[in-house]
Amino acid sequence: MLVAMTYTAAVSGATGYAGGEVLRLLCGHPEIEIATVTAHSSAGRRLGELQPHLHELAEREVVETTAENLAGHDVVVLALPHGQSAAVAEQLAPGTVVVDAAADHRLESTRAWETFYGSGHAGSWPYGLPELIVDPSGSRQRERLPGATRIAVPGCYPTGSLLALAPALAAGLVEPRDIVVVAASGTSGAGKSAKPHLLGAETMGGMSPYGVGGGHRHTPEIEQGLRWAGGQDVTLSFTPTLAPMPRGILTTATAVLRPGVDAARARQAYEDAYGDEPFVHVLPEGQWPSTKSVQGSNHAALQLAVDPHAGRLVVTSVIDNLTKGTAGGAVQSLNIALGLPETTGLTGQGVAP
Amino acid sequence: MLVAMTYTAAVSGATGYAGGEVLRLLCGHPEIEIATVTAHSSAGRRLGELQPHLHELAEREVVETTAENLAGHDVVVLALPHGQSAAVAEQLAPGTVVVDAAADHRLESTRAWETFYGSGHAGSWPYGLPELIVDPSGSRQRERLPGATRIAVPGCYPTGSLLALAPALAAGLVEPRDIVVVAASGTSGAGKSAKPHLLGAETMGGMSPYGVGGGHRHTPEIEQGLRWAGGQDVTLSFTPTLAPMPRGILTTATAVLRPGVDAARARQAYEDAYGDEPFVHVLPEGQWPSTKSVQGSNHAALQLAVDPHAGRLVVTSVIDNLTKGTAGGAVQSLNIALGLPETTGLTGQGVAP
Amino acid sequence: MLVAMTYTAAVSGATGYAGGEVLRLLCGHPEIEIATVTAHSSAGRRLGELQPHLHELAEREVVETTAENLAGHDVVVLALPHGQSAAVAEQLAPGTVVVDAAADHRLESTRAWETFYGSGHAGSWPYGLPELIVDPSGSRQRERLPGATRIAVPGCYPTGSLLALAPALAAGLVEPRDIVVVAASGTSGAGKSAKPHLLGAETMGGMSPYGVGGGHRHTPEIEQGLRWAGGQDVTLSFTPTLAPMPRGILTTATAVLRPGVDAARARQAYEDAYGDEPFVHVLPEGQWPSTKSVQGSNHAALQLAVDPHAGRLVVTSVIDNLTKGTAGGAVQSLNIALGLPETTGLTGQGVAP
Amino acid sequence: MLVAMTYTAAVSGATGYAGGEVLRLLCGHPEIEIATVTAHSSAGRRLGELQPHLHELAEREVVETTAENLAGHDVVVLALPHGQSAAVAEQLAPGTVVVDAAADHRLESTRAWETFYGSGHAGSWPYGLPELIVDPSGSRQRERLPGATRIAVPGCYPTGSLLALAPALAAGLVEPRDIVVVAASGTSGAGKSAKPHLLGAETMGGMSPYGVGGGHRHTPEIEQGLRWAGGQDVTLSFTPTLAPMPRGILTTATAVLRPGVDAARARQAYEDAYGDEPFVHVLPEGQWPSTKSVQGSNHAALQLAVDPHAGRLVVTSVIDNLTKGTAGGAVQSLNIALGLPETTGLTGQGVAP
Repeated sequence: MLVAMTYTAAVSGATGYAGGEVLRLLCGHPEIEIATVTAHSSAGRRLGELQPHLHELAEREVVETTAENLAGHDVVVLALPHGQSAAVAEQLAPGTVVVDAAADHRLESTRAWETFYGSGHAGSWPYGLPELIVDPSGSRQRERLPGATRIAVPGCYPTGSLLALAPALAAGLVEPRDIVVVAASGTSGAGKSAKPHLLGAETMGGMSPYGVGGGHRHTPEIEQGLRWAGGQDVTLSFTPTLAPMPRGILTTATAVLRPGVDAARARQAYEDAYGDEPFVHVLPEGQWPSTKSVQGSNHAALQLAVDPHAGRLVVTSVIDNLTKGTAGGAVQSLNIALGLPETTGLTGQGVAP
Repeated sequence: MLVAMTYTAAVSGATGYAGGEVLRLLCGHPEIEIATVTAHSSAGRRLGELQPHLHELAEREVVETTAENLAGHDVVVLALPHGQSAAVAEQLAPGTVVVDAAADHRLESTRAWETFYGSGHAGSWPYGLPELIVDPSGSRQRERLPGATRIAVPGCYPTGSLLALAPALAAGLVEPRDIVVVAASGTSGAGKSAKPHLLGAETMGGMSPYGVGGGHRHTPEIEQGLRWAGGQDVTLSFTPTLAPMPRGILTTATAVLRPGVDAARARQAYEDAYGDEPFVHVLPEGQWPSTKSVQGSNHAALQLAVDPHAGRLVVTSVIDNLTKGTAGGAVQSLNIALGLPETTGLTGQGVAP
Repeated sequence: MLVAMTYTAAVSGATGYAGGEVLRLLCGHPEIEIATVTAHSSAGRRLGELQPHLHELAEREVVETTAENLAGHDVVVLALPHGQSAAVAEQLAPGTVVVDAAADHRLESTRAWETFYGSGHAGSWPYGLPELIVDPSGSRQRERLPGATRIAVPGCYPTGSLLALAPALAAGLVEPRDIVVVAASGTSGAGKSAKPHLLGAETMGGMSPYGVGGGHRHTPEIEQGLRWAGGQDVTLSFTPTLAPMPRGILTTATAVLRPGVDAARARQAYEDAYGDEPFVHVLPEGQWPSTKSVQGSNHAALQLAVDPHAGRLVVTSVIDNLTKGTAGGAVQSLNIALGLPETTGLTGQGVAP
Repeated sequence: MLVAMTYTAAVSGATGYAGGEVLRLLCGHPEIEIATVTAHSSAGRRLGELQPHLHELAEREVVETTAENLAGHDVVVLALPHGQSAAVAEQLAPGTVVVDAAADHRLESTRAWETFYGSGHAGSWPYGLPELIVDPSGSRQRERLPGATRIAVPGCYPTGSLLALAPALAAGLVEPRDIVVVAASGTSGAGKSAKPHLLGAETMGGMSPYGVGGGHRHTPEIEQGLRWAGGQDVTLSFTPTLAPMPRGILTTATAVLRPGVDAARARQAYEDAYGDEPFVHVLPEGQWPSTKSVQGSNHAALQLAVDPHAGRLVVTSVIDNLTKGTAGGAVQSLNIALGLPETTGLTGQGVAP
């Protein structure tokens, strides 16, 4: 039996970690056919040499990332270094569904862009985090994605942080000021280009912070999403750390409790927010989330606690930075844009232990 | 659209690593419905507490492993400690397809069983390694599985070793005497019962051998499979080692070259053996296999080299001990037994990086 | 040449991680002779079987932990489960220097003890963190240790947190309210008793929080030390997480900046606080600390940043939980108590990569 | 008290892993003062930026590796890429003790050099493995080192393999033909230059072989040492593998038993060989060695087994590739050359867990 898939896709940046994960998920997607894989320095090579885990695609030839090679597909996934997406996207047909896994189209604010990325703000596209509460009344970002032809995939840290905190802001559990987030990411988040501090001998067995003091580029993106959720500006102290694991993000997010908010009300708000979500799970009390439980999957798990002594709500969330935090989020949003069931091709469970 | 799956399954030992992996794969199997999950000490608990990565099954209740609870399903998977399968299997209907992930029904030889496992040899069932060459003419084990109602899932080390060496013995590339195998396994191979030497603090950052000197119970199983492949008795020196990773087996297998065998002939024999296999891949020259490339998947990758100086063929293979080495092999064999396409539910790629 | 060491020591809990690290350090201590090693369930066994890395002590026999066996030494190190130290210490001669690595004698407040540990507060002993600023004028805890015969070794998290934050409170850089600390610890911090969630297969490749919401027992100990440093009560939100590494703690500590505090002033305060310390290092700007850089050593490294947008000071510190965080801190304090140079036996550098 | 150390040392390649480990050990050496640290691309930088674990040396400036900068010291350690040592050494005074951690001066055979390294064989220097049995009568390599002014530090794999097998060949336990060694190394063995396959995200959680089929450059070096031990040529099949850990080598070495050799005789031969060695330990029966037990130390641990069925002796050994396998071996040999006690500066135990 020959199955004709409905859509064709081109994936650029196919030799990196984000591109590889997009390809891995699309291999299991029943409606999207991987027609073209592109990259830059590896053009002309077998994909099997560069992404040896993609056995099904081992004999594919990587072609150069050009507008010509990307054109003519229903879907184009851009997994390029930031700053390169806009130029490519402009050359693609308006009806092509373009999903940008880079930061280029995430921020609405030109000032925020310029502060954190420099010049050349490309403008913003619909934000690809379907579960995100985008106003205090509780409407979701997924409502804005059907029919979209341009989608900005959220950053990995923002995905973990926004899932953790949006319900608290939307429900008025916490103050919008003085939010503190500390997140630990697997080293794939730093990409595949070889730098000495990312060597296995350096990263195994050790943890280190970076971008401390508000300098990480995901800071304004998290603030933007939380502003949508709560309807007012927030201030965030965000510290990312590098953990000795290939994948996964553990986010510890805390915010100042508003008067009268207790554990029961807080839990109820989260259960209301995520009770019907296929990919976001509020764990039963007493069970702590582990990044292993979502590894390789599009799932997120959360646990929360109210700390009356400190006067803070503490929410911990786990995602796989490459799946829910990048490629899974991309496919999920793509499904919505294309009118497919949201979970299509994303039914895998976590790979543990 | 409501899809009625064709078969129902019960999985025993559902809270361990092997049982968890069977459940993970069955979650993605379009023809088999997980009807019952059983265990012993955890009976009565939510599965989500014990296997938190199986989000889809989180609310399932674990029931006691009894013949009553396992009865009435089309398929029963036994992931029990060895020595317990036979008693359970006897109480299941003859037409039920029973897949035993333990060692109980792998060995034909009562003497080998008694030497390595003690008394109580339960006899042997069809061996669930479809790709295994089972006689020098090249016939495969898969030919013996259609319609089988009792299947013995191979051990994880035997899976890696047999895939690595069977073609060499079948094609007469090597002598059957003095085969040497050294294999490195992820620590999930040691199971989920908590022992001090398996703690993270002990295993991370360190490697150690065990069962050195021919004492590991998988030794006679590897010798049995190689005898099938080559048509004569073999002698094997097998050393297992514990590697600081959760999953995966890297097998380094060497055997004495027969006169006149060169690299081209050796490679040809392997390409002939596996060229049409969906799950076993002989890598292009110069590319070394990594366990990461098969993580969480039913794939195996091999590379080989002829060492004229040492007079040995060296074959290295990688599998995921829990997938191809246990649960994936089980599902693959089950598919054949049930008359389904062999790759049903096993289309996942490796999860890397 | 025969060297007569000056002091004899008995180490209890010698088969655990804390006790093993004490022994490792004392093997390199020129003035303290390891005379007796005790434990409970392993009494009668060779130490080499239980602590195979202590080659020099391999043939030592472990004896039962009793007051009789511990008596008659100049120094006794107690590395027992909490709640057992007081009863043992009472039976030791008043002149014996007793160092308690458990929590029993750390907290001054009976109320805090009862809230976090239950009944039976044993009272407090001099706190063994020599570098700790213990009042806003800048005096140090080391001034209180010479001649001490009872010393409470700080907890591992408190060591990292107090080194990170005490200078800020003492110098009035930050508010004492609403301090937020998130710390990631290697799994040796959870001890050597085998529990399923601490298995290598569970911990490798994953991070998880625990004790979220203010429940961790180190919370009041951190608050106590910060109160000493700043001269007023503090409130702390503390979240510990388990990281996939055997050793090390990365602490991310943030507090609300007081008006007018800028980066230069903050850095100056830290350089003033630690510029003369042999074991605590404020890294040059732009260099992030890694737990690898202090592994196996008594060193701590810090980096700080002022985040004007969030209005917070962020200080990150790294220690080895077993060395500076337990056994190294114990030996350092012991050196002071005995009148030896503070760095005696602690001159090892970090073991990296 | 001011201590005047007896010898001054210059360490080249000070920013790499081997050079860093030499420096770490020399920091604890009471008779050798680190006078100069040199490197190439990092000349002019603070050492603390490049080797942050060497707290004691943080403020040292790295100077360019030139004969001028290296001249005028009692000891020069060369930790350079292979092929560069000879040219540097020629410019150093004959009386300077030069220790070469590269391969340049290990091989006696020009033919072996040319086969594995290419042209430009620089000749051989005394081999720095003191415990190595260098003829069947049992004399040791340490006898050849006193007063040496040029020393070739063994390769890391050869150190593990030779310690494992030399006693068996010297005592005639095994045949010299058809030796099989499979070794697993931590990734620091591959050095600090950043290559994609050595990234943390690639190496964590995975094992892979390389240089399969006799191509690894350590092969002739192992054969050379075993020929010394046994007094006749040997043939070796050597397969190195890369393990997900920063440090350590586990070697599994097997050889064909000679008639009549049983377990008791084999064990006796090893106990005779190493019973008096300070750094090489034959473990009691039933205890398997782990690389963790020797981490950061100059110790090696071995276990052996006779496999009558396979007709092979199996010896497993563990070392730290950077310590006993490189820098520790260098310091140990240097001690002998200088007439110091062999263990000077090498008294550290393993760092575990």
